[in-house]
Amino acid sequence: MTDAPYDLYYWPSIQGRGEFVRLALEEAGAPYTDVARGPGGMAAMMKILGGGAHGIPPFAPPFLVSGALTIAQTANILHFLAPRHGLVPDDEGARLAANQLMLTLADFVNEVHDTHHPVATGLYYEDQKPEAARRAHGFTTERMPKFLGYFEGILERAKGRERHLIGASTSYVDLALFQVLSGLEYAFPRVLKKLAPTLPRLTALATRVTERPRIAAYLASERRLPFNEQGIFRHYPELDLAAKH
Amino acid sequence: MTDAPYDLYYWPSIQGRGEFVRLALEEAGAPYTDVARGPGGMAAMMKILGGGAHGIPPFAPPFLVSGALTIAQTANILHFLAPRHGLVPDDEGARLAANQLMLTLADFVNEVHDTHHPVATGLYYEDQKPEAARRAHGFTTERMPKFLGYFEGILERAKGRERHLIGASTSYVDLALFQVLSGLEYAFPRVLKKLAPTLPRLTALATRVTERPRIAAYLASERRLPFNEQGIFRHYPELDLAAKH
Repeated sequence: MTDAPYDLYYWPSIQGRGEFVRLALEEAGAPYTDVARGPGGMAAMMKILGGGAHGIPPFAPPFLVSGALTIAQTANILHFLAPRHGLVPDDEGARLAANQLMLTLADFVNEVHDTHHPVATGLYYEDQKPEAARRAHGFTTERMPKFLGYFEGILERAKGRERHLIGASTSYVDLALFQVLSGLEYAFPRVLKKLAPTLPRLTALATRVTERPRIAAYLASERRLPFNEQGIFRHYPELDLAAKH
Repeated sequence: MTDAPYDLYYWPSIQGRGEFVRLALEEAGAPYTDVARGPGGMAAMMKILGGGAHGIPPFAPPFLVSGALTIAQTANILHFLAPRHGLVPDDEGARLAANQLMLTLADFVNEVHDTHHPVATGLYYEDQKPEAARRAHGFTTERMPKFLGYFEGILERAKGRERHLIGASTSYVDLALFQVLSGLEYAFPRVLKKLAPTLPRLTALATRVTERPRIAAYLASERRLPFNEQGIFRHYPELDLAAKH
C-alpha cells in the first residue's frame, strides 16, 4: 500500500496485460504506483497472490488495489477505473458495449499468446516450436484478419463518429486497441503490413492515440517498457508468416 | 425478437459458453427464448452476427437481446443479468469480485477448449491429435489442479460462509462453477476423480447447485442439452490422462 490512490501490481519486466491498465491510468492522469517495479514490490505482489490481502486473492496479475478493494482481471480493472476517469461514456449501454469489446480484445490477446505457447505456459517456446509454427499459421491467416476486420467493421459502420470505437471521445477501448496494434506490429510486422491496407480506420485511430499528450509523454518515458520476448507479443520471425499467405 | 423479456442466441446443439447464461436465466426463473433452437432461429442469429441489429455486432455467440440492448461476451451478459435477478450481492465490491471470478472461470474454459484445439479452431480435432495430447498433459497435470485449487482455496478461506463463492446466497459464479465441474467430469473423469479428494468444498457446492429446485428441473428437462464432442467439454479418453500422473 502506497500513498498513491492506485497501486498497480504486475510483472515488472514486461508490458503484458498490465499495459492495458497502465495506459488507462496514464491517459487519466491518475497518480499510481507500479508496485512490483519498486523496491520490495515483487515480494509484496507475491504476498497478495498468496492470499495476504483481505478478500479474494487474484488468480494472476495484473491487479489493482484501491482503498479496501483488490481488483483482478484486466477487463474488470478497466471496467472499474473507466467511469471514474471519463474513459467510457456514462450510460449503461455504452459501458456494456465497452466491456464487450474489451473482452473480445482480451480473447484476441490470449490467442496471440498461444502462438508462441500452444502446448503449455510452463514450457519454453523452444520446447514447442513445431506446434507454434502450426498455431501461428492459423492465427495469421484466419484469426488475426478476422479479429482486426471485426474492429475495422465497427468503425466503418459508425459513420460520422468513426474516430472512436465507443462514444464521442477516447475510451479505454481505444487505448486497448492501440496497444494490440502496437503489439502486433512488433510481433508480426510482415503480416500486419500486408493487412494494413484493409484497416485504414484502425490504423488512424491508433495513430491518434499516440498523439494524445499524456499518452505521448508516457510512450516517451522510461515507464513504458519495451516489447520483448518474455511478454505476450513476441517477435519470432519464423512465426511472422506473411510470405506464406 | 420474441415476446419473452430475453432472447438468448447461441449455437443450438451444444452447451458451450451459452450454458452459463442458460443456468442464470433458469435459476432466476426469467422467461427467455433460446432463439437459435427454434424455427428460423439460426438465420436470425447469423443476421445479427452479420451486423443486422443496431449497435455493435457481437464477435461471436452467446449474446443476449434485452429491449434495445444487444449484449455479447458471456461474463458481460452475466454481469448485466445478475443484479437484475438477485444472482449477485448488491455492493460494488462483491460485483467486482464476482466478475473477477467469472473471468477467471472463462480463462479456465478457454484452456479446456484448447486441449482439443491447440493448433486452430478451424481444424478438426483429428487434425491436431499429437498437439492435443501434449496440451492435455500440461492441462491435466498443471493448469486444472491450479485453477481448481484456486477456487477450493477461496471457499477454504471463507470460514463460516464457505457455502458460496461470493456473498451469502447462490450467485451466478456458483452456477458457473457447477457448470465447469460438470464439464470436467464429462471430459476428464479420471483426472477429476483423482483430484476430487482435494476439492471437498467445490464438490459440495456443485452438488448443492444441482439440488436447487429450478436448476434440478432444468437439468431434468429437454432444455438441458447433453455434453457432446462438438462443444467445449469433450470426452476423448486419450486426453484424460490420469494414469500418467
